[in-house]
Amino acid sequence: MKIVALVGSLRKESFNLQLANYMKERYKDSFSIEIADIKSLPYFDQDEELNPPEVVKGFKESIANADGILIVTPEYNWSVPGVLKNALDWTSRVEKVFIGKPVMVVGATPGAMGTIRAQLHLRDILSSPGIQAKLLPPGNNEVLINFAAQKFDAETGQLIDEATIKFLDEKVNNFIQFIEEVKGSSI
Amino acid sequence: MKIVALVGSLRKESFNLQLANYMKERYKDSFSIEIADIKSLPYFDQDEELNPPEVVKGFKESIANADGILIVTPEYNWSVPGVLKNALDWTSRVEKVFIGKPVMVVGATPGAMGTIRAQLHLRDILSSPGIQAKLLPPGNNEVLINFAAQKFDAETGQLIDEATIKFLDEKVNNFIQFIEEVKGSSI
Amino acid sequence: MKIVALVGSLRKESFNLQLANYMKERYKDSFSIEIADIKSLPYFDQDEELNPPEVVKGFKESIANADGILIVTPEYNWSVPGVLKNALDWTSRVEKVFIGKPVMVVGATPGAMGTIRAQLHLRDILSSPGIQAKLLPPGNNEVLINFAAQKFDAETGQLIDEATIKFLDEKVNNFIQFIEEVKGSSI
Amino acid sequence: MKIVALVGSLRKESFNLQLANYMKERYKDSFSIEIADIKSLPYFDQDEELNPPEVVKGFKESIANADGILIVTPEYNWSVPGVLKNALDWTSRVEKVFIGKPVMVVGATPGAMGTIRAQLHLRDILSSPGIQAKLLPPGNNEVLINFAAQKFDAETGQLIDEATIKFLDEKVNNFIQFIEEVKGSSI
Repeated sequence: MKIVALVGSLRKESFNLQLANYMKERYKDSFSIEIADIKSLPYFDQDEELNPPEVVKGFKESIANADGILIVTPEYNWSVPGVLKNALDWTSRVEKVFIGKPVMVVGATPGAMGTIRAQLHLRDILSSPGIQAKLLPPGNNEVLINFAAQKFDAETGQLIDEATIKFLDEKVNNFIQFIEEVKGSSI
Repeated sequence: MKIVALVGSLRKESFNLQLANYMKERYKDSFSIEIADIKSLPYFDQDEELNPPEVVKGFKESIANADGILIVTPEYNWSVPGVLKNALDWTSRVEKVFIGKPVMVVGATPGAMGTIRAQLHLRDILSSPGIQAKLLPPGNNEVLINFAAQKFDAETGQLIDEATIKFLDEKVNNFIQFIEEVKGSSI
Repeated sequence: MKIVALVGSLRKESFNLQLANYMKERYKDSFSIEIADIKSLPYFDQDEELNPPEVVKGFKESIANADGILIVTPEYNWSVPGVLKNALDWTSRVEKVFIGKPVMVVGATPGAMGTIRAQLHLRDILSSPGIQAKLLPPGNNEVLINFAAQKFDAETGQLIDEATIKFLDEKVNNFIQFIEEVKGSSI
Repeated sequence: MKIVALVGSLRKESFNLQLANYMKERYKDSFSIEIADIKSLPYFDQDEELNPPEVVKGFKESIANADGILIVTPEYNWSVPGVLKNALDWTSRVEKVFIGKPVMVVGATPGAMGTIRAQLHLRDILSSPGIQAKLLPPGNNEVLINFAAQKFDAETGQLIDEATIKFLDEKVNNFIQFIEEVKGSSI
């Protein structure tokens, strides 16, 4: 099973990047995770959508070929980072590579509120006609990691909070089932 | 009165760019509009926020020096474009140049719904602690230009729909009053 | 197939009530529609949730026994009406009768924007842990009937706009498929 | 200074009701708080808006005569309770008694997320054309009381968390200033 991860933070020691890397290692027997290089994408420009730069083509192909997408996002100003929204915008035009694609959303933050507002916006975005992702239902599957500085090891970047790891295991398991189910679905 | 405009679309014949240029000309006796070059900004990276590239510094200074900000935005996937969100993200860190700044939001789209969902997201973003703009109250001041292909002249790029122009005049007048009022306000 | 409809407007000649009645008649070969009497419910009170009034028990049973739910809602103040939200609140506690239930949302309004903001709020609500409905994916299935006074016959209350009827037929067909699929799903 | 409070929970030992009562006592030298009896209001019915029941008339008058409104709300299913939305719906028609009225929003919850999603919805609602409240700007003034069972005394119902009390004092002070400012404002 091939998962492509979109990570919304560019900071080298980003908790969200650490989370993506942690998941890549922990769940490697279930799926591979390739972290897309979304910062190499130019800004979306409708004048270029029919024949976009090669880097955009490659990115869209990797989405198209993935069994599922993992979005790992901080919250910037009560929404998703611009770099993440920009990557999603490229996928939504001409060949709409997200349509029907299973998506799981996770987020980590040093603050108390766990990226809750970013995830609300992101769910709107993922539901729109140009994207139409199959989102793992949020009600029982939200991953909102707050107080991240206490839950990740400052030296190794590993997630070390046992309750969070157990919770994440369950939700990832739900995501794997969800991917299987979406494959068999027609709507 | 100096207004800086952020335009969310990079397309050369963008209705939103046409709208910004139209407003620059039509209201030149009331204020100047400088369209910020937001596509020249790199992606926000927290590792660089303390000493960002010169282009970011210049952009933040132009916001800091403006009497008001005009955001002219299309709707991409039920939210604002990545390039616009990215520009806002830079303004929200270290020197938070949007705090207390009067902001007016307008949007144009070929579709029926007039960028309504993008504007809902944008209002959340503009209310967040890192931005804290003073938003022209939306209830009676929303500018949602739908069916833009019928309202702009295809050759000249001029807004030609009389009802829309009259409506826009009123809302711009409200914005000018609002800027004056915010100047005298302490909260 | 048994569908329970929740209608958000109490006005006798409400376009949304007309729409529910129209759908009841038009699709009677595919499913029955029972319009729930949500205005007979008291306000949700947590002190009564363990042993609610009989009218609440009956309402929750009808939801529990339905194959799917149709929500027909106007937009009041950029959100759903209080009477509709109150009905949903009762369903979300103790026996959470909406969990996994297939839901379709439609809305009609005399205005231009087709209840778009009410439907955004409603999707958040339906995704929450106490409700966890299975929502017909919105991207390609939104039913936003604007300018309703031109699309319904003032005397008979029938939907008479052919394009809208055709569109509605397609979306109802998607909903029927969706109900079948949800039945076979485990997540 | 006269404040009318709308409390979204009907539970007798509601943390939100306790919070309203606490604020009534603590700030009695700055303003009086009258808690509106919103559960006595019938459901909004457009057929009755021109000549609503006496209880609705009385409620609307109390809003119209208030210097400011305090909304004290739990979060039900990621939004505001139906009973609160219904009260707001009555105020938004015919005589739109909320227009220009200063509003402060506070919320308490036993959970971790402090009614954050309810407050996002509420801000949309309060911005709509029928309501057009003057909302105390949220960026620096949000009152999200999480883990309420630890912050209120179970026997007396008093708020006893010192950090929360200090924070609330500051925000109430901002609200008082805001009310004064709105009085002098024309837009």
